[in-house]
Amino acid sequence: MSFGSILDQLIDALRVLPGVGPKSAQRMALYLLGRDRDGGRHLAQTLSRAMDEILECKRCRMLSESEICRFCSDPKRTHETICVLESHADVLAVEQTGYRGVYFVLKGHLSPIDGVGPESLGVNRLLEWARKPEVQEIILATNATVEGEATAHYLSERLKDAEVRVTRIAHGVPLGGELEYVDGNTLAHAFAGRKAVS
Amino acid sequence: MSFGSILDQLIDALRVLPGVGPKSAQRMALYLLGRDRDGGRHLAQTLSRAMDEILECKRCRMLSESEICRFCSDPKRTHETICVLESHADVLAVEQTGYRGVYFVLKGHLSPIDGVGPESLGVNRLLEWARKPEVQEIILATNATVEGEATAHYLSERLKDAEVRVTRIAHGVPLGGELEYVDGNTLAHAFAGRKAVS
Repeated sequence: MSFGSILDQLIDALRVLPGVGPKSAQRMALYLLGRDRDGGRHLAQTLSRAMDEILECKRCRMLSESEICRFCSDPKRTHETICVLESHADVLAVEQTGYRGVYFVLKGHLSPIDGVGPESLGVNRLLEWARKPEVQEIILATNATVEGEATAHYLSERLKDAEVRVTRIAHGVPLGGELEYVDGNTLAHAFAGRKAVS
Repeated sequence: MSFGSILDQLIDALRVLPGVGPKSAQRMALYLLGRDRDGGRHLAQTLSRAMDEILECKRCRMLSESEICRFCSDPKRTHETICVLESHADVLAVEQTGYRGVYFVLKGHLSPIDGVGPESLGVNRLLEWARKPEVQEIILATNATVEGEATAHYLSERLKDAEVRVTRIAHGVPLGGELEYVDGNTLAHAFAGRKAVS
């Protein structure tokens, strides 16, 4: 059963959004058409403008409206530390910690089975940047997944000959986490990474 | 913390979609920009076209690309029965039942507190239509909520002087429903609406 061709096309087009299935897409389309056409028009314009005008920072591959993003061009941030992340969203998460260095976004992780190698992650650009004299530390903050770990391991190997400190974020029990509900691997990491109480 | 003005505008514009909060909107925006710009552009175009080209049927107020919708203009459907519904999405739900009459979409329910009166529900147009000689039955299929019931009651009063049979869909235990988990009101309706076993 279909409503009409343009409406069907709209429902179909909305499914490109992550987490939106056929039912949600239908609900969204009917809501916009029935109750908020102005909002729909505004969304269409903003979407179109964003797709064309938002570029990628030439340095750190973060989304940016200019050639160099607001993180890389901020004089208050230190360029001594580069935090390596898997995704653009991770930048937002790390910003909440108060980190004031710069970033490098891999836009994925190593995944030979999907044809994702070091080239598409921009590894050479990172290596080149890491050799610059101002850079003191590279923080590998890829996800704590198998792929994220493998990517971090690969990068640490490649960064060995650069004269720079390479670190990996700590794994352990999350704050507020109860030991009873923490999985064995995480707990093993927490024990292995234990520190002297000062 | 903000990414950049256009990206912030996009995240904000996506929040017009029902069920999309700030986190989902951010995820959607970053996904489209990072991984599916073509999908984003296609969505923008389709959205813009749909907002401008999808009209409302002059007869039943259903969404339509032409003046008279595909339900009203379908020669295989009977015009003897008009099913009155609250929303466009309800039409899709009723279509699944195999109903082959026509529809009338109220686009809401009576709600004096929100300033929604009979005019904005198109009640006069429905009354006029109900008086046409071909119309035999009006099925009031508004929601089984307080507002839906009140709207159905109001319509049944207004339709009294039209020479037409006015019916209300049955309320009771849903198929697959277990009595233990059905609320008291529904169960009371199911008992009041009991029928002789033939």
